[in-house]
Amino acid sequence: MPEFQLIIGNKNYSSWSLRPWLLLRKLGVSFEETQVLLQSEDFKTQAMQYSPAAKVPVLLDGGLAIWDSLAIAEYLAEQFPQAWPKDKAARAFARSICAEIHSGFMTLRSKMPMNCRATGREVVGDDALQKDIERIQAIWNECRQRYGHAGPWLFGEFTIADAMFAPVVFRFNTYGINVQGLADEYLQTVLQDADVQAWLHAAQQEQAVIMGYEVGLTAQ
Amino acid sequence: MPEFQLIIGNKNYSSWSLRPWLLLRKLGVSFEETQVLLQSEDFKTQAMQYSPAAKVPVLLDGGLAIWDSLAIAEYLAEQFPQAWPKDKAARAFARSICAEIHSGFMTLRSKMPMNCRATGREVVGDDALQKDIERIQAIWNECRQRYGHAGPWLFGEFTIADAMFAPVVFRFNTYGINVQGLADEYLQTVLQDADVQAWLHAAQQEQAVIMGYEVGLTAQ
Repeated sequence: MPEFQLIIGNKNYSSWSLRPWLLLRKLGVSFEETQVLLQSEDFKTQAMQYSPAAKVPVLLDGGLAIWDSLAIAEYLAEQFPQAWPKDKAARAFARSICAEIHSGFMTLRSKMPMNCRATGREVVGDDALQKDIERIQAIWNECRQRYGHAGPWLFGEFTIADAMFAPVVFRFNTYGINVQGLADEYLQTVLQDADVQAWLHAAQQEQAVIMGYEVGLTAQ
Repeated sequence: MPEFQLIIGNKNYSSWSLRPWLLLRKLGVSFEETQVLLQSEDFKTQAMQYSPAAKVPVLLDGGLAIWDSLAIAEYLAEQFPQAWPKDKAARAFARSICAEIHSGFMTLRSKMPMNCRATGREVVGDDALQKDIERIQAIWNECRQRYGHAGPWLFGEFTIADAMFAPVVFRFNTYGINVQGLADEYLQTVLQDADVQAWLHAAQQEQAVIMGYEVGLTAQ
């Protein structure tokens, strides 16, 4: 019996769901996966069965429900300390960029909603979007410059930071955002990862939902 | 010499700055406070001196810079474990609601910007705002029902959760949002707290800034 149950939304659209899913896979933890589809008329009622926030993702651990991607990540890190970089300074930096992506990048989120199986989409850019895209690249570049010697992920080994930024990689891929150098190497590392590919494959099998969801996705 | 330096924005407007400031005060940690005013023409240049995200707050600990309110909180919790509830289930719940307020409540944030010294402001409500307000009350009620026996804060003793929700208390006070029962008791606990009052007093001394900031504040 798997110890954990993870409640997620549509793999194609739910960027927040991808994060704990990928983290659990990389931690090698077995878990049962339950989907609540974002287009369900009774989405909120279904999601409320799992947490009072009525959103996905939710991690169930025995009688405990933990919701929101970053809270789930910190909860898991208590049991699996390898989820964060071991070095104190690297961990502080990782937490900073994870909180930054968790609370910000509103323009990127709203103008480039995750739709992993789609490619060749166009987005009308503006200064705010450009600023978000440049900041993402700066983060990836800085991480790869600092920790590139230790492995292919942001901090060498896979950590929570990679889980938090994985949806951005899908967004860049869908909307054809070109990144350069070390940032591009990192983007390819994520895209070609076997677990990321497994998520994408499942997303490709899911039913497409009405366009309203594709352009105005607000569910967490 | 204080060990920590905290970079904050205007006390009247910067909801994100209030959080680590209040947490440091409650942890009894001495720190030096540096302000970068949000209306400064060179805000970004000034803020970039402290962190590459060019936002406030930033915690400086020796050579380390940690930015974003929740990352600062988790960083401090490593050194001061009392910052989170001691009980595992309570801590999981606290992390969930902290991440929920950190990533969500967009309508509340945009329609009721923090302006601590103001009272009697009006806000034109809609369903989305009402939903945000009800969810906040539900969180406070649930916490007070579960942990009210242990003290006056959300989890009995003061924790990071109280720091994260403190700006919401100011917002409710400014815009005259009525809450009931246990949630109201909690709101009064926060408003009457000596450290919260000290922040408010400092906010009252600050220069008012142009209205554009008051209605469209976007700086973190």
